[in-house]
Amino acid sequence: MTASHTVKILPEGLDVRVADGDDLLGALVFAGIRVSAACGGQGTCGRCRVIVREGDAPMESASPLTDTDIANGVRLACRTRVRENISIEVPVTSRVRALALSDTNDRITAQKLFEEEDIAARFAGAGHDPLFRAIHFDLPQPSLSDSTCDFSRIARAAKAAEGINIVDSELSAIAAIPKILRDSNWNATAYIWNVCAARHTSDFDEHGYRLTALRPGRTDALALVVDVGTTTVKTQLIDAASRTVLAEASEYNRQIPFGEDVISRILVANKGRGLKKLQAAVVETINALLTLLLKKTGRAREDLAAVFMAGNPTMTHLLLGVPPRHLREAPYVPVANAFPPFRARVDAGIDVPPGAYLHSFPGVASYVGGDITAGVLAAGIHRSPKLTLYIDIGTNGEIVVGNEEWLLTAACSAGPAFEGGGLRCGTRAAEGAIEGFWLDPDTREPSLLTIGHGKPGGVCGSGVIAVLAELLARGVLAPNGKLNPDDPRVRPCNDGLEFILARAADTSTGKDITLTEADCDNILRAKAAMYAGYKCLLGHAGVAFSQLDRVIITGAFGSFIDLEKAVAIGLLPELPRDRFFYLPNGALLGARLGSCSAALYREVDDVARMMTHVELSEDPRFMDEYMAAMFLPHTHAEEFPDVSKRLADCRKAAHA
Amino acid sequence: MTASHTVKILPEGLDVRVADGDDLLGALVFAGIRVSAACGGQGTCGRCRVIVREGDAPMESASPLTDTDIANGVRLACRTRVRENISIEVPVTSRVRALALSDTNDRITAQKLFEEEDIAARFAGAGHDPLFRAIHFDLPQPSLSDSTCDFSRIARAAKAAEGINIVDSELSAIAAIPKILRDSNWNATAYIWNVCAARHTSDFDEHGYRLTALRPGRTDALALVVDVGTTTVKTQLIDAASRTVLAEASEYNRQIPFGEDVISRILVANKGRGLKKLQAAVVETINALLTLLLKKTGRAREDLAAVFMAGNPTMTHLLLGVPPRHLREAPYVPVANAFPPFRARVDAGIDVPPGAYLHSFPGVASYVGGDITAGVLAAGIHRSPKLTLYIDIGTNGEIVVGNEEWLLTAACSAGPAFEGGGLRCGTRAAEGAIEGFWLDPDTREPSLLTIGHGKPGGVCGSGVIAVLAELLARGVLAPNGKLNPDDPRVRPCNDGLEFILARAADTSTGKDITLTEADCDNILRAKAAMYAGYKCLLGHAGVAFSQLDRVIITGAFGSFIDLEKAVAIGLLPELPRDRFFYLPNGALLGARLGSCSAALYREVDDVARMMTHVELSEDPRFMDEYMAAMFLPHTHAEEFPDVSKRLADCRKAAHA
Repeated sequence: MTASHTVKILPEGLDVRVADGDDLLGALVFAGIRVSAACGGQGTCGRCRVIVREGDAPMESASPLTDTDIANGVRLACRTRVRENISIEVPVTSRVRALALSDTNDRITAQKLFEEEDIAARFAGAGHDPLFRAIHFDLPQPSLSDSTCDFSRIARAAKAAEGINIVDSELSAIAAIPKILRDSNWNATAYIWNVCAARHTSDFDEHGYRLTALRPGRTDALALVVDVGTTTVKTQLIDAASRTVLAEASEYNRQIPFGEDVISRILVANKGRGLKKLQAAVVETINALLTLLLKKTGRAREDLAAVFMAGNPTMTHLLLGVPPRHLREAPYVPVANAFPPFRARVDAGIDVPPGAYLHSFPGVASYVGGDITAGVLAAGIHRSPKLTLYIDIGTNGEIVVGNEEWLLTAACSAGPAFEGGGLRCGTRAAEGAIEGFWLDPDTREPSLLTIGHGKPGGVCGSGVIAVLAELLARGVLAPNGKLNPDDPRVRPCNDGLEFILARAADTSTGKDITLTEADCDNILRAKAAMYAGYKCLLGHAGVAFSQLDRVIITGAFGSFIDLEKAVAIGLLPELPRDRFFYLPNGALLGARLGSCSAALYREVDDVARMMTHVELSEDPRFMDEYMAAMFLPHTHAEEFPDVSKRLADCRKAAHA
Repeated sequence: MTASHTVKILPEGLDVRVADGDDLLGALVFAGIRVSAACGGQGTCGRCRVIVREGDAPMESASPLTDTDIANGVRLACRTRVRENISIEVPVTSRVRALALSDTNDRITAQKLFEEEDIAARFAGAGHDPLFRAIHFDLPQPSLSDSTCDFSRIARAAKAAEGINIVDSELSAIAAIPKILRDSNWNATAYIWNVCAARHTSDFDEHGYRLTALRPGRTDALALVVDVGTTTVKTQLIDAASRTVLAEASEYNRQIPFGEDVISRILVANKGRGLKKLQAAVVETINALLTLLLKKTGRAREDLAAVFMAGNPTMTHLLLGVPPRHLREAPYVPVANAFPPFRARVDAGIDVPPGAYLHSFPGVASYVGGDITAGVLAAGIHRSPKLTLYIDIGTNGEIVVGNEEWLLTAACSAGPAFEGGGLRCGTRAAEGAIEGFWLDPDTREPSLLTIGHGKPGGVCGSGVIAVLAELLARGVLAPNGKLNPDDPRVRPCNDGLEFILARAADTSTGKDITLTEADCDNILRAKAAMYAGYKCLLGHAGVAFSQLDRVIITGAFGSFIDLEKAVAIGLLPELPRDRFFYLPNGALLGARLGSCSAALYREVDDVARMMTHVELSEDPRFMDEYMAAMFLPHTHAEEFPDVSKRLADCRKAAHA
């Protein structure tokens, strides 16, 4: 794993943990410190000055600062990368004047649910029983008095060494045995796989292993762990024995050119060779990432012994080449919720050795898939007495509520707004996407923060929330989603009015970046769908928001969800902020846990079995709740008392 | 199965069962009635006249008989096929004068161990639990209130219908589900396979099934059963539900051009692409036979749900593409004695649906393979209190001795003589091979019987035994394997002396067919190896021949082993003839039993485990026994008291 450092922010005294190489501006934003950055973080406006008080943080490139400034510890936050623990002071002159949506200027992001140490602790509790493993041995050579066949000789050694019964074999593994054993002087490593535990059933005893490969000498057994998202495919290379992440890599899903969301991909899959093409595209994505991981780590492809995949039902069907058609046609029936393990190379085309199996995490319904069960497994909701709401925000928002005793789940079609889709200037959370936005209360000039700190090219999902919340607080946007025609940056457009976020001269596209009233409407619908989803699911369970011990957020937003703003627009319920937690990638973490422990892998079946699926489209309350949520933050202000009050205060101040 | 008829032979009153369409000459030979046939059965010499007394048996073609003869019921046995139950009289004029090796002219072939009825009875005892089966169902259609996924819907139906847990699936099967179910209006047949019971282990519970295929409507699940012999590949198409043989077909193993015996094939496999070529050759053989079986029965290839294969270790390794090299290099270690099931199409190239698994029967040592365990299973030796000697005579002779309590096995390299190999005029048991041979005691002219009744082209294994025994009885051959130089048909050749079996004018090759002293030596070695094998194995067990309750003979000889002659040359021990049984094809029957019953399939593992292998090359007694057996019938005449006495009588009579 990448090293991390602590940034102490003065005078607040806040500590922020950041990864090695993260930039300081991001760390400040993460901590809720609003820093001026008119240029969007490109190092040109010179407004994000900070002073290093302890440790050192070299600047990245030329800047408007003088040598004296630099000698005095002055840095531009947007051009400074954190390489060690440091203390910095953010002078008042660098700050956007706080017009607080919250009472304090405390960090407004949710805290991470787990640190790496917590994850290690979970493994410790699960026992050392991966679904696959490498067993190294020096075998006694055969003789006339010990002429046991090669395969039984290996099985005998496995039994003696680890009490393991090898009862089955991949043909390619068995065919390679005689040469490998003799060439290696009977010193070899057997890769074995728990054929029974790998199936989604609890009816099996767990003592049958399959020989999936044999290699000369001593080698490791690695797993490829994959979160196949509709938009992004994330991978990790896992060393099963040490349970460590050797490397990670992600890339856009190469299916995107076939359609942005699952529905459009299902439509493509239904026609001609569409299914084959979609399968090939995602497999190509995974294969490219695997090659990258191997290059990063210097490991051999032959080290791979298993693949673990978590994805939504459409992604799972497509990766396996199974027709997804009926996922979107009533009564919405997957071909399988729980697919058995298949051969990753022969069956799915993933470029791993022939004996490596592909394990897909089980789903629950057509739109609640293995990414959700993996996420619940990762978050440990099913083992905790704490009543938890788990939210995966994306084009399809998935919601789980429950605890160790019960779990309810539902999916709601939020639309692509939170992934930047369906918006005039929406973009995925990629280089140049606006993800932070503030209006200077005096000048009413915007400060932008873009991913990668380049010129803005559009607004991504987290940026949209930031923009909406800021415009709402500054009185530019009315609670019904209408723009204030009197604002100097508001102008008419084809879709009613629009607000100019950045002017053509300052953008990478050479065109104005705007937010239209139609965009606002899309976002309203998206957040209303999510909120109505929580309400209905909680209603089914007969619990109120206030009874929730935890709200865990995962999904498309990456590490950048501005909690206060998400509550401000009514995307998240108003609850004490310390009940909110962020799980950077629940699906990937769940898949990783399963790859390192057969017990945890099988536990996900319990999770799937515990989950009762609620079909929201069949719930008569859903439409009422949805309509009520089509207001910022909500039609019923009493559901957001503090936010509503502060919003009123802000507006008063803005007009003062 | 082919119909069978009874031929009553008068005046003896013997009944012989023959298959529909068998020729009458063969039936007479089978019954031990020696009929004149100077032409070798071509219908030209007119010496094999018989008279039909009851029923009818039309002649096949033109013959030396007059219309009056035919009207009076006279037939040439060699040109007459049996189509119904008949009684025939064999006049003295048609008979070779009996110079009896046995005291009576009773049938001298061993009786069949089982009739079809006995086999059916064995199934009845085993319970109806095939390893694979077809389950037909009308599924309830999914609805919003029953939106179980397709795969679980099938599993639910299987559980309800037969209490079966489907826990796994072939990917091709699962991917085909949605279309098949909907196109067939939810009326379909699932092919399932007992994934756990199929493995060579008893550590599994038996309740996990795998979906291997799904087909619309109601269809049957068939098995292809294969006995892969070094020389001949025999197949049957089995209906698992009714446990019937739908058709059978056999063909020479297309590996033969690469070498006649296993050793030469192993040498080919060790070089370059030899293994691939040998695998392709046998797979091609099997595929051709399968196509023939489907054509014969009009069944669909998709009906095939499983393949069961019994073969010697070399054949098993080659079919699977597993290097056989170490089978023939000390310390003679197979890659695996028991191979797990593999995918018949993907792994081995057999042209069956992708979900059909290939089950190979387990072996015991490098030269005792699945054909022997399958044969023991078929013969039921391991379940019988009767002390049994099981002999599979071929290039490699395999021997088993034991009963329900213990089993010993050994292989002895007999050489190819009993398959017609290594002899000057040897040939495989094919069209034109001499398989019956008698010398007229008066004229000393030979009567030949060839397979197919064409002109002789060589001598096959069973023919060699007949020739040797006859020459020995007639004093042409001395007990030490030397020919009598004074015999009119004996002449010098490159290898010492030779006996002229047929003159060039009468053969299909246009050359004399002879038996040389070198040939005799080869046969002596072969029979000595077999006999020494029995002796050593019985010695290991501490039992004498006289304690044997049964001797079961199977193997290369087909249905034509002349028991009396085999004892006369010392290939079989001298025991009361009613202790000898013939099992036409033990390996194929065993494979067939396994294909119809999981219990019987798994029982073969018990057989393999019960078997203790004795390495004869390591047994110091073997060479002594071998040398002692290099005499006709044996150096120690007391081991063959009756034969020795009769032989002396014959010789006296011959010289009288």
